Amino acid sequence: MNKHAIFHITTAPYAYAKDKDTLSLRVRTAKNDMREVKVHYKCRYDWQNPFKEKTMKLFAQTDLFDFYEADVQIEKNRYRYYFEFIDREGNQLYLDERGLQEELIEGPEIPGFQYAYIGEADVYEECKWMQEAVVYQIFPDRFCNGDQSNDPENILAWGEPVTTESMFGGDIQGIIDKLDYLQDLGIDLIYLTPIFKSTSNHKYNTADYYDIDPHFGSVELVKELVKKCHERGIKIIFDAVFNHSGDDFFAFKDLLENQEKSKYKDWYFPEGYPVSTEKVNYYTFANDVSVMPKLNTANPDVKEYFLKVGEYWVKEVGIDGWRLDVCDEVDHEFWRAFRKTIKSVNKEAVIVGEIQHEAVSFLSGDQLDSIMNYPFKWALVDFFAKRKIDEKEFNNLVTMNRVNYMRSITRQLWNLFGSHDTARFLYECDGKVDRMKLAMVFQFCFEGVPYIYYGDEVGMTGGHDPFNRACMIWNEDEQNKDLLQLYKKLIAIRKENKELIYGDYKPLYLEDNVIVFERNDGENSMIIAINNNEEDYVVNKLFKKKTIDLISEEPVSLNKELALKAMEYRILKVVK
Amino acid sequence: MNKHAIFHITTAPYAYAKDKDTLSLRVRTAKNDMREVKVHYKCRYDWQNPFKEKTMKLFAQTDLFDFYEADVQIEKNRYRYYFEFIDREGNQLYLDERGLQEELIEGPEIPGFQYAYIGEADVYEECKWMQEAVVYQIFPDRFCNGDQSNDPENILAWGEPVTTESMFGGDIQGIIDKLDYLQDLGIDLIYLTPIFKSTSNHKYNTADYYDIDPHFGSVELVKELVKKCHERGIKIIFDAVFNHSGDDFFAFKDLLENQEKSKYKDWYFPEGYPVSTEKVNYYTFANDVSVMPKLNTANPDVKEYFLKVGEYWVKEVGIDGWRLDVCDEVDHEFWRAFRKTIKSVNKEAVIVGEIQHEAVSFLSGDQLDSIMNYPFKWALVDFFAKRKIDEKEFNNLVTMNRVNYMRSITRQLWNLFGSHDTARFLYECDGKVDRMKLAMVFQFCFEGVPYIYYGDEVGMTGGHDPFNRACMIWNEDEQNKDLLQLYKKLIAIRKENKELIYGDYKPLYLEDNVIVFERNDGENSMIIAINNNEEDYVVNKLFKKKTIDLISEEPVSLNKELALKAMEYRILKVVK
Repeated sequence: MNKHAIFHITTAPYAYAKDKDTLSLRVRTAKNDMREVKVHYKCRYDWQNPFKEKTMKLFAQTDLFDFYEADVQIEKNRYRYYFEFIDREGNQLYLDERGLQEELIEGPEIPGFQYAYIGEADVYEECKWMQEAVVYQIFPDRFCNGDQSNDPENILAWGEPVTTESMFGGDIQGIIDKLDYLQDLGIDLIYLTPIFKSTSNHKYNTADYYDIDPHFGSVELVKELVKKCHERGIKIIFDAVFNHSGDDFFAFKDLLENQEKSKYKDWYFPEGYPVSTEKVNYYTFANDVSVMPKLNTANPDVKEYFLKVGEYWVKEVGIDGWRLDVCDEVDHEFWRAFRKTIKSVNKEAVIVGEIQHEAVSFLSGDQLDSIMNYPFKWALVDFFAKRKIDEKEFNNLVTMNRVNYMRSITRQLWNLFGSHDTARFLYECDGKVDRMKLAMVFQFCFEGVPYIYYGDEVGMTGGHDPFNRACMIWNEDEQNKDLLQLYKKLIAIRKENKELIYGDYKPLYLEDNVIVFERNDGENSMIIAINNNEEDYVVNKLFKKKTIDLISEEPVSLNKELALKAMEYRILKVVK
Repeated sequence: MNKHAIFHITTAPYAYAKDKDTLSLRVRTAKNDMREVKVHYKCRYDWQNPFKEKTMKLFAQTDLFDFYEADVQIEKNRYRYYFEFIDREGNQLYLDERGLQEELIEGPEIPGFQYAYIGEADVYEECKWMQEAVVYQIFPDRFCNGDQSNDPENILAWGEPVTTESMFGGDIQGIIDKLDYLQDLGIDLIYLTPIFKSTSNHKYNTADYYDIDPHFGSVELVKELVKKCHERGIKIIFDAVFNHSGDDFFAFKDLLENQEKSKYKDWYFPEGYPVSTEKVNYYTFANDVSVMPKLNTANPDVKEYFLKVGEYWVKEVGIDGWRLDVCDEVDHEFWRAFRKTIKSVNKEAVIVGEIQHEAVSFLSGDQLDSIMNYPFKWALVDFFAKRKIDEKEFNNLVTMNRVNYMRSITRQLWNLFGSHDTARFLYECDGKVDRMKLAMVFQFCFEGVPYIYYGDEVGMTGGHDPFNRACMIWNEDEQNKDLLQLYKKLIAIRKENKELIYGDYKPLYLEDNVIVFERNDGENSMIIAINNNEEDYVVNKLFKKKTIDLISEEPVSLNKELALKAMEYRILKVVK
């Protein structure tokens, strides 16, 4: 038995309250080391009865590790537990709070792990509506110009090449005008990059958190947008830029004007006086971005101000949550308070961080509901778009990504393909649409929330900022209709087949750049096959099943082998 | 290289803010696998400069694992980092966010781990005063009867055999009377089990959180106690019983009286009506303890009430913190709020949980400062008192215990020998004082806060409750003066030699039930040798050092070997 591989801790995602009556437990072992893994559990105050036992289920596998899981329940939720391992050679070991044991200490003294109590206040409440959603990101200046009367001066013609400074006149009315399009596409949740008053086209340097940029519209118009979204069953969330303000935000203006005498000097991090936007002698977002002075959220006044901003738009305007810009450079204390504030106004509202990396410290239940899941994107880029990694490394990356978090959180991760901050996926594919399609199939058939960056669905491409922020292509002749149809089909398949949302992910075949995996929720099962090769390929692993191909809608009997054409994908629903 | 053993996560204790300008990083490897472990780090926005590198220090070792550590600092505290391993055969691997890599991805794309920012609001502030303290626990009814006028009826004579119901008349005046004794002993922090109004002798069923039990004294007298402690440089903390109230607490009385109509019904967990203390049809502490109904701390009114209680005694009476009864059955949300409340009144006040097990989820900086470290006690019981485990298993247990937490927290753990909830250490030793002495030497020379349960210092013994709660022996003829002298000596040595508080713990020799370890804080070094055998023993490992024996005050030249008599201990200060 590989003792070094065995791992458990009493915190999420290895031990957490699945709900107020259920403890979810995980343990890690070496890959293919175990014949059986069991958890033994009982009430920590039960000195009479023997431990109950439950066989744990292998639910994830990487090149090095197996991950086992079990949900357990006892009255009053005061748990004591230990694990039992039997490896493939029949060796047996126990794991308790003191480590690995060859022999079990019998009786009441077993130094089991303790999950002493599930406190209701600590239970993370999952957001099922988001787990079942498809997200669509809009960069407003580039989506649709619905009202030319509010255009900035010197806007470029729609579709002209973009620079970091260009303005195109896209606005809130434009989004309202295109709600039919979005509804027809099948999306459930719109995420808007910032729309508050701001001088830039991206508006990440906020001048006023309570006003809409006049080139985009008004608070009234935004209320109409929210209402019209809700009428269509579409939710909408805004971008909370609380890591930094604009340099024209009232507090920073006061600091510039009154310098050391400003009562807002502790709202920022001045590094000397006089504070100057030319010298940039203050802490900013990234490297000396003068228009984005970093806010001091440890200051109670700043904290209160921005909690109120967060509350206002949810309470007064009815938005369904927030995406948090540069979330991981704002303190945990702030986000804990933010969660309480937002959820107390609308329990169903969601909080999604821009964290481009592993984010366990934010995603353990007391802060965020989700993040923009860039590690997912980069795995897809490297396997499908650039073919830098093989199918096993790809599976490792997406598997580590899904086991980092509680199950509910994993189902809520925004599995994006791209955003205004990274090159578009089709650009990463060097324009090869067939590669993008394979990645799309994976995205829509994997655990987590599929995410469309505006225009990806009609074949838009573009490298890093500003080229990833081009104008939406509305001219149907220029749209890639084939791609758009596949998006619609995938969205429909996902909505009709809940195993793609709730089912376990289980790789069935990983060889030669071919991936076959199952999604099974206990009731229904789907088999997804992806041939990431320019040649035909025969998967000769036996999985005898009757299925229906959900793309062609033809029956397919799997019998020992599955033939895949070059770059083919199959989404096969198992017939019961 | 043992890949399965390598472990790092971006949360405490593997990554945490040591202070607002320092990131502390840890990584785990297989024991004796590595020749060198390095961390490479830089600003996450630095696209120009190469990574800085730092060799990590091996700071802990168990039978399976090595633990390496390094503190790193960069401007603005926005970290990106990865690890480099070179094993003893010269093989090299890197660890980044994507896992183990044979080759490093050069350039800006290295998918390093990210500690995106050290938010000042998230920095855990250590309590140096507690790290340097020695704690003394008092069970008031049994410590000293200083005022016979407030005695309960039918008290037993001092020193009579105890039952679960006995009352002996110990009180606050008695503690005040013995402050000279405690000061002479050398203790710095008194922890009192509950003193609020309550019918029992232990007073864990509280009737009134704002009043002192009349048999113990008054609020005024308690203020005098606190004042007199502070005059002597002694701090004092009380017992916060917030998991449950007494059944005669006003809210539960109201529930009993008004049943379903009680406005306090959501303060508890009734399981049906009528609520009855005979049927015990409500959630209680442990198993149906009718006088201890569990409080619903998820109820905002309950939360507010007990936060106010916590605040009152710190603010109005000046106590130096709280010990939290059944801490792990109260929700994390409550303790986070409790921490904010208490620290806002007195930043130096401490919060110590009764958690008898591993407590990472409470000890990551946002809730507690310390726990009653029972895993430490059980390791000492099993090695010194009962000799159930060997020196290597003992070292594993105390090492795992110290690497569970941030360094600062480990130094604050209350390394107890016993309490009112477990048998006394001398009882565990079957009365063998020489075994207890060895354990005491280990306790005072290890990382963490030494803790004396009243009477242990004069040789009191006694098994489980109620026998561990006998009356303090004040008759000098009955006291074990030899033991008392050793306690005084050990306290003095610890106070005079800060390496026993801040130094690294490094085992030098672990064989045949003999332990030799070093405490080294970079400036000073101590070598502690303990022969847990009934025979003489010669440690023949070479550690050439000139030392002074701090017990005998004689110089000792270590040269190749160290001879230890049966059951001997040596505390040797290295001469520079």
